[in-house]
Amino acid sequence: MARTLNTTPRQDGFRMPGEFEPHKQTWMLWPERPDNWRLGAHYAQKAFVEVAAAIAEFEPVTMCVSREQYMHARSVLPESVRVIEMSYNDSWMRDCGPTFVVNDKGEVRGIDWTFNAWGGLVDGLYFPWDQDDLVAKKTCEIENIDTYRTEGFVLEGGSIHVDGEGTLLVTEECLLSEGRNPHMSKEEIEQMLKEYLNVEKVIWLKWGIYNDETNGHVDNICCFARPGEVILAWTDDENDPQYERSKAAYDLLASTTDAKGRKLKVHKLHIPRPVLITKEESEGVNAIKGTLPRNEGDRQAASYVNFYICNGGIILPLFNDPVYDEMAEKKLKEIFPDRQVVGIYAREIILGGGNIHCITQQQPLGISK
Amino acid sequence: MARTLNTTPRQDGFRMPGEFEPHKQTWMLWPERPDNWRLGAHYAQKAFVEVAAAIAEFEPVTMCVSREQYMHARSVLPESVRVIEMSYNDSWMRDCGPTFVVNDKGEVRGIDWTFNAWGGLVDGLYFPWDQDDLVAKKTCEIENIDTYRTEGFVLEGGSIHVDGEGTLLVTEECLLSEGRNPHMSKEEIEQMLKEYLNVEKVIWLKWGIYNDETNGHVDNICCFARPGEVILAWTDDENDPQYERSKAAYDLLASTTDAKGRKLKVHKLHIPRPVLITKEESEGVNAIKGTLPRNEGDRQAASYVNFYICNGGIILPLFNDPVYDEMAEKKLKEIFPDRQVVGIYAREIILGGGNIHCITQQQPLGISK
Repeated sequence: MARTLNTTPRQDGFRMPGEFEPHKQTWMLWPERPDNWRLGAHYAQKAFVEVAAAIAEFEPVTMCVSREQYMHARSVLPESVRVIEMSYNDSWMRDCGPTFVVNDKGEVRGIDWTFNAWGGLVDGLYFPWDQDDLVAKKTCEIENIDTYRTEGFVLEGGSIHVDGEGTLLVTEECLLSEGRNPHMSKEEIEQMLKEYLNVEKVIWLKWGIYNDETNGHVDNICCFARPGEVILAWTDDENDPQYERSKAAYDLLASTTDAKGRKLKVHKLHIPRPVLITKEESEGVNAIKGTLPRNEGDRQAASYVNFYICNGGIILPLFNDPVYDEMAEKKLKEIFPDRQVVGIYAREIILGGGNIHCITQQQPLGISK
Repeated sequence: MARTLNTTPRQDGFRMPGEFEPHKQTWMLWPERPDNWRLGAHYAQKAFVEVAAAIAEFEPVTMCVSREQYMHARSVLPESVRVIEMSYNDSWMRDCGPTFVVNDKGEVRGIDWTFNAWGGLVDGLYFPWDQDDLVAKKTCEIENIDTYRTEGFVLEGGSIHVDGEGTLLVTEECLLSEGRNPHMSKEEIEQMLKEYLNVEKVIWLKWGIYNDETNGHVDNICCFARPGEVILAWTDDENDPQYERSKAAYDLLASTTDAKGRKLKVHKLHIPRPVLITKEESEGVNAIKGTLPRNEGDRQAASYVNFYICNGGIILPLFNDPVYDEMAEKKLKEIFPDRQVVGIYAREIILGGGNIHCITQQQPLGISK
């Protein structure tokens, strides 16, 4: 039985755990819309299969797939991946899926944020988004997990990162955007986040990654490796428009403290060279009115910070970059000596507007303490 | 992880338990096709909600619902019923859902019979049936349950009843019908059933209920109350075309033994007076070519034997019959003194071609012995 609750996680003693805490499983959605994914999502699907199979080496994976793609997905995914039918408008489980919270008794619940395709009718990326907005509830109901629904409060999972000990990372660019909660002040939004994620301290970075169509989701620029340590997308090139963004984030992170009063250790992770959409890639997308176009020459918001942490593993996007791919792999092996780093060539995912972190959602293992 | 196995239940030590053994939950599908259910399935949905809510008083219920009907179904079903998105061609979970089998370690697996809408292109009830045929696999995968797939062997769950101790009840009318497995002899079919249901003795009744569009499913004419006891649909009216059918079944049952060598106790359960489709009911169905028509005056295969046994309960179809409704309720209370008998007015279900047993499927509780 999965109830929809009228209380808040803070009231009920639930908190969002860090991604590095133990998972029960990973949830994903299947890519297919041809107005976002080139060539009928053929290559994106291959990349998603690779990601799912890589995660499945570490923990259970559930892939949710539409009626139309069910037979195909079931046949190309390994048997170790659970496939469940579900509708969606696109395939970003991080953003439309539930944010799971846990308590000390080992119970797990889900937050069912209102989803509006990254900006609704103001600057959302497609219309409609009705099926995406049902994904969180459907996901939780499959697992018999109670949900909190924030009717009218818009948020995506990619716009938040927590350390599991009271600290939350967000960006102003995203959370204060016109297309989400313009009726609320920054203070009101912060209060809402504290109430639902059960955190004490919100660190507001100014921006996300340059040209990120999500209005600068934090999960593409900065994440926690563990409490007290963050990993920040960086560039040494002062002429890159990313420089000002990363520099501002670095200065803030280096001078603040977390909820426990700790100074933060900041690991810099250099971004790849600009990833630009080719003419062939652009032409492979069915351009239609109302969906964000994929134009030749557009710079994608490529960042290694969009990796995913699973039980014992790091699933890292690679871009065939002659310098920075290897550097990122090396750095993450240092930061996570106890995890296996698995690199996956992710160009087909970033062409759709996000990366490995954006297409995954961890369901924490409820652990009684 | 839900594997598709190439062995058989008998080889692996799994058997189909009796419906009266403990359940983990009940599965159902949502009715909606307007070429079978009058008035856009409006009244059928109300009846299905009543059935689901009644069962949910005894054990968990999962209702699988299409994308189109999801929001409506979720809003009219009680919160205690789990709702999961799933496609289908119609709503007969008994027939297209998995047949669950168990072993003595408490493990549960599912048999994914080939489904062809009760006769395929010979005398099937609609076309296509592709989504129905995926229901068993999807159901098992949601539960991480391994399946056996009988590619090419057609069977519906409503055409079999077991006592859980080695005895199986079927009808020749159904299992030897032209639209199912005409390439197999009766002996070959019996061998297949023994292999998959892990039974020793198959009791072949000649016929099912008169005018039953399923080619005489056994679950409408005869079922086990417990090992050694069966309940048989009966009529005292020798002029009713049902009489010959029930009499033949009675004579056979009274003279045979079960797998354990026991004589069977046969309880007679009188059928209701003929249930005929009214003009208004007929006109409420969107008649289309290729789907069985619902003509005014057609006699429906109404039978009280199509009840459903759940944990502690009997969910019994009623027809507003001035005599036989009460008689059926009384009789079932006597046969099942430890279960609560819940009657539900089921005219809207029988108008669609089946009844409460046909729209439910028990998932047994795995019990280690």
